[in-house]
Amino acid sequence: MERTLIADLGAHTGETVSLSGFVDVRRDQGKMVFFDFRDRSGMVQGVALPNSPALETAKEVRNEYVVTVTGIVNQRPEKNVQEGKVNGNIELEITDIQILSKAAELPFDKDTDLNLDTRFDYRPYTLRSERDRDIFAVQATIVEAYRQSLIRQGFMDFQAPALVGGDAEGGSAVFKVEYYNDHTAYLATSPQLYKQIMVGAFERAFTIAKIFRAEKSATTRHLSELTQMDFEMGFIKDETEVMAVLETVIRDTVQAVADKHAEVFPRLGTSMPLLGDKFPVLTLAEAHQILGVEPADDMEPEHERNICEWAKKEHGCDFVFITKFPVASRAFYTMADGDVLSRGFDLLFRGLEINSGAQRIHDHDEMVSRIESRGMDPKKFAFYLQAFKYGMPPHGGCSTGLERLTGRMLELANVKEASAFPRDMNRIDTLLSSNEE
Amino acid sequence: MERTLIADLGAHTGETVSLSGFVDVRRDQGKMVFFDFRDRSGMVQGVALPNSPALETAKEVRNEYVVTVTGIVNQRPEKNVQEGKVNGNIELEITDIQILSKAAELPFDKDTDLNLDTRFDYRPYTLRSERDRDIFAVQATIVEAYRQSLIRQGFMDFQAPALVGGDAEGGSAVFKVEYYNDHTAYLATSPQLYKQIMVGAFERAFTIAKIFRAEKSATTRHLSELTQMDFEMGFIKDETEVMAVLETVIRDTVQAVADKHAEVFPRLGTSMPLLGDKFPVLTLAEAHQILGVEPADDMEPEHERNICEWAKKEHGCDFVFITKFPVASRAFYTMADGDVLSRGFDLLFRGLEINSGAQRIHDHDEMVSRIESRGMDPKKFAFYLQAFKYGMPPHGGCSTGLERLTGRMLELANVKEASAFPRDMNRIDTLLSSNEE
Repeated sequence: MERTLIADLGAHTGETVSLSGFVDVRRDQGKMVFFDFRDRSGMVQGVALPNSPALETAKEVRNEYVVTVTGIVNQRPEKNVQEGKVNGNIELEITDIQILSKAAELPFDKDTDLNLDTRFDYRPYTLRSERDRDIFAVQATIVEAYRQSLIRQGFMDFQAPALVGGDAEGGSAVFKVEYYNDHTAYLATSPQLYKQIMVGAFERAFTIAKIFRAEKSATTRHLSELTQMDFEMGFIKDETEVMAVLETVIRDTVQAVADKHAEVFPRLGTSMPLLGDKFPVLTLAEAHQILGVEPADDMEPEHERNICEWAKKEHGCDFVFITKFPVASRAFYTMADGDVLSRGFDLLFRGLEINSGAQRIHDHDEMVSRIESRGMDPKKFAFYLQAFKYGMPPHGGCSTGLERLTGRMLELANVKEASAFPRDMNRIDTLLSSNEE
Repeated sequence: MERTLIADLGAHTGETVSLSGFVDVRRDQGKMVFFDFRDRSGMVQGVALPNSPALETAKEVRNEYVVTVTGIVNQRPEKNVQEGKVNGNIELEITDIQILSKAAELPFDKDTDLNLDTRFDYRPYTLRSERDRDIFAVQATIVEAYRQSLIRQGFMDFQAPALVGGDAEGGSAVFKVEYYNDHTAYLATSPQLYKQIMVGAFERAFTIAKIFRAEKSATTRHLSELTQMDFEMGFIKDETEVMAVLETVIRDTVQAVADKHAEVFPRLGTSMPLLGDKFPVLTLAEAHQILGVEPADDMEPEHERNICEWAKKEHGCDFVFITKFPVASRAFYTMADGDVLSRGFDLLFRGLEINSGAQRIHDHDEMVSRIESRGMDPKKFAFYLQAFKYGMPPHGGCSTGLERLTGRMLELANVKEASAFPRDMNRIDTLLSSNEE
């Protein structure tokens, strides 16, 4: 019999159907056995009644067994209907169960509240939990909505390289790669230089790229391998045009998640982000003033949290732009705004910086001077500098961390939760220490 | 004045408009100066007439200068209309030119036919050539169409890791990474193990991921950093279901490229790929028989080319599936088909393997035995094996090389041409030898 997806069962009431999936839960009540079956489309309750020819197999089957089940789709009696739940009004009366794969004894219930290390140790299993399926379904929607918004706004996707020849940008700790013939390569800490090169050819370019940070940092905000969603655009008058594109992208993304995953927010104990009428924009000086703290060159994590509280209270918005950072504290390619300030900005979301961007320098000689003024050698940037040498439009762009955006969207306590296979100082799949003999 | 995109100029005949873009070509005819201007939307001819207030600037401007131009959109006289060309019926009568960025003297015309090394040495400039803009616009469409076809077929996007803890699969040469605290990590040679893990949680998963191959190979078919488009699906009856999904994806992708970029094929001296009614399927034995060559465990490059010629001639199709490879010559997780053969397949396209796939082993104990039979240690696969231990459906999947697919779509002589920033034995942006002091 053809497989019917669980989400489509409602259209087959009274019919005999075949479904394939996992045993999400089995409840053996002696004379009969109840199941929740799970496939990629949803869940449904099944029951092997006392007279079912499948009763013997039903008693053998355990959670996470993979099965093909034949049965009759019955309307539930009025009193047993679960309102508002998909398939809450139907039940499968099981006539046959074929076991496709057995599962070993489970180390714990997949939906148990576990510490992070245990969840990651058992990742192939814990990814099956409702929480992780929610997180990564939302993440897939975030990536897709972010990308579609950029495509609608005229941006072209490109593949930024992960292997780079030098630690060009400096600043971030970088991983070394043993390349061919004793050459050392490095893992990219950002697709920045390449997306600027793409502006010279395609004017509006974006990439969703892996980046790597060898920071010896074990905070709730850091990963060693991240996914960045980067765009860069030519022919801007200033950084506010970049901020406008970004705001549209973020609004489109939040809306897509709200449309597709409304039920996830309450399950994860959070709510849909507030978008307000327009994201508030504060200069760094204004932000410090509002918080009543001393002016400074950047924002402390605590101040990021507090200014987000302010934006939520005053503007009904979970997002806030911070602008006019000192140029000295921004990346070398950032355009100055006067002598001290820059055309850079950050976007904060629920207490955390999720995006950083700027208008960039586009004049070749100014870029060379800036590189020199930072104590770096323009010769090492010769490839990148070609883009400027042969005519570069005024341009700017920004970069959103996918894991941070996912984490704040769902108010996860640790950004590592938003990585299916997190890498950090201590872990690549398994704890590094556990590999030592 | 607001910027008008060049593609939209036709709607503004008789009006004064402002456009921003690059000087693609300048032709100084003494009394007047002709230009082709280029922006992300297209090209248009402009002319500074003898009485134009912009004539002086027009004479100063050179190719690749970045400009904002004001002018009147004129209908061309009947005899000067260029039929079939975008904006072939209009011309901009220039009244003002503002220089946004100058370009240094160009090393060569960007559309010159160059050897590959020179093109890559000057990549930030040569990406502006019509050829490279065509290639990477087509590549962006390929990626997007491939992804949308998978999403329509129920697959969920995920982020596969690039950093892995071991050289698990063996076979391919692998790059080593200096990880934290003297630990060695590796760059992924495939997202295979992770997409199988995702099947346990999401049933249908795909990833468009960077992979890395340290092969000491300098053929026209190899890159050291590649983009793979991988999917994996649960609850299959055999590998033909995977092949059916793949065929749909490929057809959707070719159709999308044909719809959006019909004009690119003749420009690159090729034609739209032939899809036939259905992709022909040959066993490896049948393929060798058709070619009249000795049976063998795999296909020689020459035989791949010849069997594609056969498929084109006999089936009007540029694609052909080859099945029933010996299990011994396939990756360890490949399901056997009897004692000798496997449930693996390759998809060839215009003479080259662009995809490889299979039904996989899903039984835990069988997988452990297979790992052992290949002389590998199941303990090193403990993380991966969890997916099987806790119940895995029958599943399969496949992997398409983006650069190979792009290369064959456009019949590029070398796959490196299909990488915006190719990495190989000798090059990361610049030639590695050129970095030596």
